[in-house]
Amino acid sequence: MEKTRFQAQMREYAKLVNAQLDLLVPEETVSEKPLYESMRYSLLAGGKRVRPVLVLGFCKMCGGTEGQALPFACALEMIHTYSLIHDDLPCMDDDDLRRGRPSNHRAFDEATALLAGDALLTKAFEVALSPESITQLGASRAAEGAHLLAQAAGDHGMIAGQVLDLQNDTLPQLTAQRLQMTDAKKTGALLRAAALLGTIAAGAGKSARQAAARYADALGLAFQIQDDILDVTGDEKTLGKPIGSDAEHGKRTYVSILGLSAAREKVQALTEEAVEALAPFGERADFLQTLAQALAVREH
Amino acid sequence: MEKTRFQAQMREYAKLVNAQLDLLVPEETVSEKPLYESMRYSLLAGGKRVRPVLVLGFCKMCGGTEGQALPFACALEMIHTYSLIHDDLPCMDDDDLRRGRPSNHRAFDEATALLAGDALLTKAFEVALSPESITQLGASRAAEGAHLLAQAAGDHGMIAGQVLDLQNDTLPQLTAQRLQMTDAKKTGALLRAAALLGTIAAGAGKSARQAAARYADALGLAFQIQDDILDVTGDEKTLGKPIGSDAEHGKRTYVSILGLSAAREKVQALTEEAVEALAPFGERADFLQTLAQALAVREH
Repeated sequence: MEKTRFQAQMREYAKLVNAQLDLLVPEETVSEKPLYESMRYSLLAGGKRVRPVLVLGFCKMCGGTEGQALPFACALEMIHTYSLIHDDLPCMDDDDLRRGRPSNHRAFDEATALLAGDALLTKAFEVALSPESITQLGASRAAEGAHLLAQAAGDHGMIAGQVLDLQNDTLPQLTAQRLQMTDAKKTGALLRAAALLGTIAAGAGKSARQAAARYADALGLAFQIQDDILDVTGDEKTLGKPIGSDAEHGKRTYVSILGLSAAREKVQALTEEAVEALAPFGERADFLQTLAQALAVREH
Repeated sequence: MEKTRFQAQMREYAKLVNAQLDLLVPEETVSEKPLYESMRYSLLAGGKRVRPVLVLGFCKMCGGTEGQALPFACALEMIHTYSLIHDDLPCMDDDDLRRGRPSNHRAFDEATALLAGDALLTKAFEVALSPESITQLGASRAAEGAHLLAQAAGDHGMIAGQVLDLQNDTLPQLTAQRLQMTDAKKTGALLRAAALLGTIAAGAGKSARQAAARYADALGLAFQIQDDILDVTGDEKTLGKPIGSDAEHGKRTYVSILGLSAAREKVQALTEEAVEALAPFGERADFLQTLAQALAVREH
């Protein structure tokens, strides 16, 4: 897909998602105001919106509408946001910054950040199963999607990845295999869910779901490796965060394990696999294939 | 209902729930083992299981089966348990003890306790929308129940109550009205959800739901006031925790605001209201009416 058309589509999807999230978590003037400020601070902080874009892209590719995709798209972004808030807490990664701004518990306080994360996780299911969602999808698909979301975000998915990630810091040696297993759960599970939720929202069949899973798994790993590459080769200004921070913190990455050149080759091969996975969809896959390629050469 | 029959029924329900929770969160031998130990530590710690018993009791009273009630019953207990784990964390109430044992983050560590709470909250929705739940209830009722659960546990329900509770500690004056509003959300929302989920699981109509809400709201407030009374008049050994701790921590309670005698009268009046709310169900309400009475005279 031509670059400006692709970028326009990305902007349109992000705008749609941002507007909907703004409606779903409005400003409130009740006593619990600080809770809503904290939820909105992280939820509306921008970012690439890769996960909701995947839901929208897969739903459209499979013949569904944006209205069908939106509840799952917003639910996923809420879960992604909650995981970042909790991940930054002092007892976890203890990060003061997120996307160039104070992390949630620094902008508010720990208790508020904890509860804002809990509230976003809970709201994700409220949104996925809302009356609007059920009107758009029917109860059966809404329930199937919300169940898949819980599995992907839960103790066998994203949370398992967070546990493994904490353990990795204490291991004497970290293999590429273990790193890959960690990432497949910590970030891969939600990315795979995003693609699958798009197919579920559209009511697509088994072969579309298999293609979606293959695409998302390849894209997820490529994304992670590219993150590690950018930490070495990136431009601080473009990236919005200091480079070399992984090495400085003694963090083992795909680059430190595989070397820069092998890591780059791997991103390329995985991107080709993601593109290939959607070949059966012909021209309809154009946007998602361009997305995979764009993420592989991204600079932030 | 005769006391020994009531107690036998309580034990049977608790046993059913405990066995199911044990299956739903099994011991695991994977790398994430500590996560599962932490989840099980709090989830299988016993307690009265009031919430799941309410789901079972209302489902049975409305003509449903235990199998229909169990997914929602277990989901609710998972959400209740997660809220206790997060509430005990240092940035919240900073409690070292829970039910006479070290609180979760003292028995494990803060990061594990945080993630175990997150995992239990997530699993609640996985369980409420599981294939078994959908087989028992149909997708429509399963989705409706899970949506209600999210609303009750979320930013307009339990989490709002936690925010209000933290604010109350800083208020110069605390009225009975504000305390009641806090409790209606912090503990009342889940108790009301428990009763309603029982009626939804049984496929009961509007009048049963209204009766369930009225019963649960009265029982919830009575429960909270009785808690405050026991902190003053209770027996440390029976209670399993030191008495007078509310006064010692300068915590304002129904007893300190209303006085002991008015607080006792209020428990009595609320219990009568709960019993009265179920009058239309005749003999079928026997167990739940006895439950309300038993909670009003409980000693722990």
